[in-house]
Amino acid sequence: MKARALVLEKVRELSLRDIDLDLEVGPNDLKIKIDTVGVCGSDVHYYTHGRIGGFVVNAPMVLGHEAAGVVVEVGAQVRRFAIGDRVCMEPGVPDLSSRATKLGLYNVDPAVVFWATPPVHGVLTPYVVHPAAFTYKLPDNVSFAEGAMVEPFAVGVWASSKAGIKPGDTAVVTGAGPIGIMTALAALASGCARVIVSDIVDEKLAIAGRYPGVSTVNVKTARLADAVTAATDGWGADIVFEASGSPRAYDDIHALISPGGCLVAIGMPVEPIKIDVSCYAAKEIRIETVFRYANVFDRALQMIASGKVDLKPLISDTFPFEQSIAAFERAAEARPRDVKLQITF
Amino acid sequence: MKARALVLEKVRELSLRDIDLDLEVGPNDLKIKIDTVGVCGSDVHYYTHGRIGGFVVNAPMVLGHEAAGVVVEVGAQVRRFAIGDRVCMEPGVPDLSSRATKLGLYNVDPAVVFWATPPVHGVLTPYVVHPAAFTYKLPDNVSFAEGAMVEPFAVGVWASSKAGIKPGDTAVVTGAGPIGIMTALAALASGCARVIVSDIVDEKLAIAGRYPGVSTVNVKTARLADAVTAATDGWGADIVFEASGSPRAYDDIHALISPGGCLVAIGMPVEPIKIDVSCYAAKEIRIETVFRYANVFDRALQMIASGKVDLKPLISDTFPFEQSIAAFERAAEARPRDVKLQITF
Amino acid sequence: MKARALVLEKVRELSLRDIDLDLEVGPNDLKIKIDTVGVCGSDVHYYTHGRIGGFVVNAPMVLGHEAAGVVVEVGAQVRRFAIGDRVCMEPGVPDLSSRATKLGLYNVDPAVVFWATPPVHGVLTPYVVHPAAFTYKLPDNVSFAEGAMVEPFAVGVWASSKAGIKPGDTAVVTGAGPIGIMTALAALASGCARVIVSDIVDEKLAIAGRYPGVSTVNVKTARLADAVTAATDGWGADIVFEASGSPRAYDDIHALISPGGCLVAIGMPVEPIKIDVSCYAAKEIRIETVFRYANVFDRALQMIASGKVDLKPLISDTFPFEQSIAAFERAAEARPRDVKLQITF
Amino acid sequence: MKARALVLEKVRELSLRDIDLDLEVGPNDLKIKIDTVGVCGSDVHYYTHGRIGGFVVNAPMVLGHEAAGVVVEVGAQVRRFAIGDRVCMEPGVPDLSSRATKLGLYNVDPAVVFWATPPVHGVLTPYVVHPAAFTYKLPDNVSFAEGAMVEPFAVGVWASSKAGIKPGDTAVVTGAGPIGIMTALAALASGCARVIVSDIVDEKLAIAGRYPGVSTVNVKTARLADAVTAATDGWGADIVFEASGSPRAYDDIHALISPGGCLVAIGMPVEPIKIDVSCYAAKEIRIETVFRYANVFDRALQMIASGKVDLKPLISDTFPFEQSIAAFERAAEARPRDVKLQITF
Repeated sequence: MKARALVLEKVRELSLRDIDLDLEVGPNDLKIKIDTVGVCGSDVHYYTHGRIGGFVVNAPMVLGHEAAGVVVEVGAQVRRFAIGDRVCMEPGVPDLSSRATKLGLYNVDPAVVFWATPPVHGVLTPYVVHPAAFTYKLPDNVSFAEGAMVEPFAVGVWASSKAGIKPGDTAVVTGAGPIGIMTALAALASGCARVIVSDIVDEKLAIAGRYPGVSTVNVKTARLADAVTAATDGWGADIVFEASGSPRAYDDIHALISPGGCLVAIGMPVEPIKIDVSCYAAKEIRIETVFRYANVFDRALQMIASGKVDLKPLISDTFPFEQSIAAFERAAEARPRDVKLQITF
Repeated sequence: MKARALVLEKVRELSLRDIDLDLEVGPNDLKIKIDTVGVCGSDVHYYTHGRIGGFVVNAPMVLGHEAAGVVVEVGAQVRRFAIGDRVCMEPGVPDLSSRATKLGLYNVDPAVVFWATPPVHGVLTPYVVHPAAFTYKLPDNVSFAEGAMVEPFAVGVWASSKAGIKPGDTAVVTGAGPIGIMTALAALASGCARVIVSDIVDEKLAIAGRYPGVSTVNVKTARLADAVTAATDGWGADIVFEASGSPRAYDDIHALISPGGCLVAIGMPVEPIKIDVSCYAAKEIRIETVFRYANVFDRALQMIASGKVDLKPLISDTFPFEQSIAAFERAAEARPRDVKLQITF
Repeated sequence: MKARALVLEKVRELSLRDIDLDLEVGPNDLKIKIDTVGVCGSDVHYYTHGRIGGFVVNAPMVLGHEAAGVVVEVGAQVRRFAIGDRVCMEPGVPDLSSRATKLGLYNVDPAVVFWATPPVHGVLTPYVVHPAAFTYKLPDNVSFAEGAMVEPFAVGVWASSKAGIKPGDTAVVTGAGPIGIMTALAALASGCARVIVSDIVDEKLAIAGRYPGVSTVNVKTARLADAVTAATDGWGADIVFEASGSPRAYDDIHALISPGGCLVAIGMPVEPIKIDVSCYAAKEIRIETVFRYANVFDRALQMIASGKVDLKPLISDTFPFEQSIAAFERAAEARPRDVKLQITF
Repeated sequence: MKARALVLEKVRELSLRDIDLDLEVGPNDLKIKIDTVGVCGSDVHYYTHGRIGGFVVNAPMVLGHEAAGVVVEVGAQVRRFAIGDRVCMEPGVPDLSSRATKLGLYNVDPAVVFWATPPVHGVLTPYVVHPAAFTYKLPDNVSFAEGAMVEPFAVGVWASSKAGIKPGDTAVVTGAGPIGIMTALAALASGCARVIVSDIVDEKLAIAGRYPGVSTVNVKTARLADAVTAATDGWGADIVFEASGSPRAYDDIHALISPGGCLVAIGMPVEPIKIDVSCYAAKEIRIETVFRYANVFDRALQMIASGKVDLKPLISDTFPFEQSIAAFERAAEARPRDVKLQITF
């Protein structure tokens, strides 16, 4: 059926127009009226570049994958949801019977279908149909705006989970973009005693640094290694989360890490990084890579609901759906003070 | 040499008197002027019962093992400490060359020597000599009183570490004594989104319930299972920390736990507990047992220093050393509002 | 449709007769011609007692859940199977969209449907329909007889996996029944250097003891603790797999285990066991419980195919389908030399 | 005191001569009469290049660190050894009171002192003094020659341990040198069902391929990826152990690994390797680095004693001590059929 949507026609061309979308409600599905959608860097990248790696926008595609809304129809087999439930949605849906999914690794199932990843439409449109198994009720004290923040925050929660944080760990996060900041908050809420965030833009560091437990280093003017050495009495950080995606961030990153420590590569550098194996081996550093997230949306919601994490200060501005294109133009500017822009219906 | 100390002469008989203590400073040791010592339930138990399990007080023994102070002398081989350093001390010292210690499991080394565990003297005396390897500097913003809280808090940190908390977990703590409350705080600081604490004494629950993230259940008047079901939508708690030491606490405790969840047995019931294996197996519940702690004093200190955990409200009263006997008499009363009593020099 | 099957009519009454079975092939299903079915202790228990715990045989039920056969029909959506494929089948099928399944813990999904567990029919019948996702191709060098051994062997593989065996571990297996022996073989193939198997029946121990790496102790005439002490120079076994299901096996079982070691409770005692927490805690023993298995059928098949594990000597006798009742009568005798009886079509 | 020893005077210059060695037996030490010493690639590298990375031979140094022998003197505090005990020795000794050692990570303690690593002398000399805590009794059925193989085998055992092998895993080992072959054997004995070993030298592959469970690929004439795809039905290897140390081995190595799989970097490429993070992330591949080993000598010995691993075929030739220089010249030739050369006293 036809529905109004924010459509990326091709590189640098957005329309707000009607498009054919499949809104049939299967037996295990929910139909959800969208309330809020966050603008993600990947949405913006498709807008500005028309592709991310091997994913190329070859046909008009609806954008948006960070979403919260209200259940308006419930599939015949669904038991745990009712009309009116406030929810947020996990945008990737795997093949439930695949080998990876049975192992609990559904995020790395090659068959995953993910919103706003070509050729799959996203959710900047008033209604969406989604499997109940990948939909999560919002606790009463979690707003739609916060619900639409769960998706990017889940990246940080998953990275924290893979890191194997131990109580009282010291972490470093390189890169103070939205994912970097949310990873820092996730790491603190997941057991780190403190996080040192580095970047080259003071405005971003200022936003991160407002949170208790976060200290910041502008690597244009100070050495991150010095800050880590001072904080850890020379032992090194237990974990470094690389969230800048800059290949240069990997230069000497091992020197920041303690014996037995861990590097979590969250950012995706466009070119290969260089690793001096002997430097990593001398401390037996483990490197974890992460791909989106699995089984953490409910956890992220609990962390927000309990007050352990406050994501509201990261919502920099909100646009009505009819001004979606303006929202994307603003996002494409990448203003240093903007962390997250959202669109509401 | 002779030193003044709080001596447990035998059951129910304490003296403040001179006693022979070995205060020779070995090459890897520190001599520490004691500032604050916490009164632990085990100290009180030796006072009131003269024994804990197989550990029997057969000769006069100095009490006290939760201590903080100032370095006054530094062994010849010690590099990381200087006179004047403010420190707290880990009371158990293993055989450094034992199999367990080499594995990192030094707390279960059968050769551990532990303060105020017969026949080893404790530290309610003005000076003590201790290996530098088991002494930890207090961060500037951690007081001696907090430093003397690290030992009991470490029990909770270690239990949290063994539990393998994942970000956003829901935990239950059964028993709101000092260890129960500190375990709840450690669990929250280690990644739990929320903790449900149960007890039968309202005053204890009120102290626990003042902390954000803690909800409480008085099991005299409400069913803990109902609270867990409501909080987790029927899934169960990811972790139950049993901190009451009551064998009855184990009745139906498995029903509180989620599939794949974990029971951490912290309390030490005086008689064997009963486990219905098939009930545990149906959810593949893992049971962890804990013995004191290993490698967490520095972590506990970071958690306190960063403000993630505030233990100060748990210090109920402070006595001068010369009133140590009064402190023990008060502790032996087990007033519901008393969490931790401390003695200062 | 009607199909011939071995039907448990009620306690102690078996018939070989036609019964209505659903053999419709769904889009994700396979239809399999059964070749071999093993007789499991649980099948026999339903025969002799009519129930296992809360699972009660209230209506005629087809027995059998350890099965191998040949694919004869392939559902429309199935990609990885073809007619003629030799396969074995995992008898439990969870709700693929449940929380437990998404976590990779599908064996503890409360919605699991499991063959020959009331009221679900088993597979002692010529044809069965089963989801492709829970069907596994037999490598060329694995016979149907071995394929039908995968199910019980998977219990041992899963227990070994949960134990977290480290290379060169020493394990104890208490109980030399089929599951005990297969756990011993799984543990050896999973990294244990050696396994000590205990029982009270010499014939069973003799079968276990024929395998390299297995030593045996008849606890009627020797102390298991002495054997463990001698083998480990007093350190204790890294892992004890309790596979007898006898509550008495738990008496002093902690004394067999090393500091930091693990007890895996495989057997299901009919009454609660007693655990002295302080004894377990002194060594920080971890207790793992296991429920069937998850994600190990393919692993078990590789272990058999590679020659690491030879299960053929455990097949004590084979009966044609038409003599199924005789097979069950023989199994009910529990002859000491019988490990596994099988039925072929 | 003066002792005869194989001394590396400087690059390419070996002497068999008297040299001053410290043979004082401390209270926790053993004095050991050396029986067998293996020639390691690192010994040869010091001989041919005079350095390994930052470790430079600036003064005459005794070579040899893979050793077995007989206890001839026992320090005053040592309890578990007696004169006449047959033993092998772990060549690295950490600071027992360091932070890394207390954590069980003694191999990455910066203070480790390691035989035949400048400026520390090795053990190609008739007697050596070593801490009892790093000395291990040989089981009766383990020869001195096998005892001297424990050190290189321990590298494979440790790599297997860090890999977190699960029962039935499929592994790839790139590089069929001594460490590659021993890693393959360790991986099989640690739970892998099968190992695919790759190299470019047929003679080396032939030696590896003689072991059950090992298949081989000469990457000069066949594609390793094809072999892995065929063996795993397209899923990929659970673990890849990189043991060649060639930077080129890392090209496309991620393509060999399954979703959720692991790369263990054992070889030490002389230049940085390139890692395409997005390729690793798409499967969430974990990378483990390893540095020597910790806590595995006893495990390695049990694996040999139990017959799980037969290292004897890897001993290519044995030289008397007086022909040590000839042994090194032969080793420096790097004949394809030579796996391990040993020297006996």
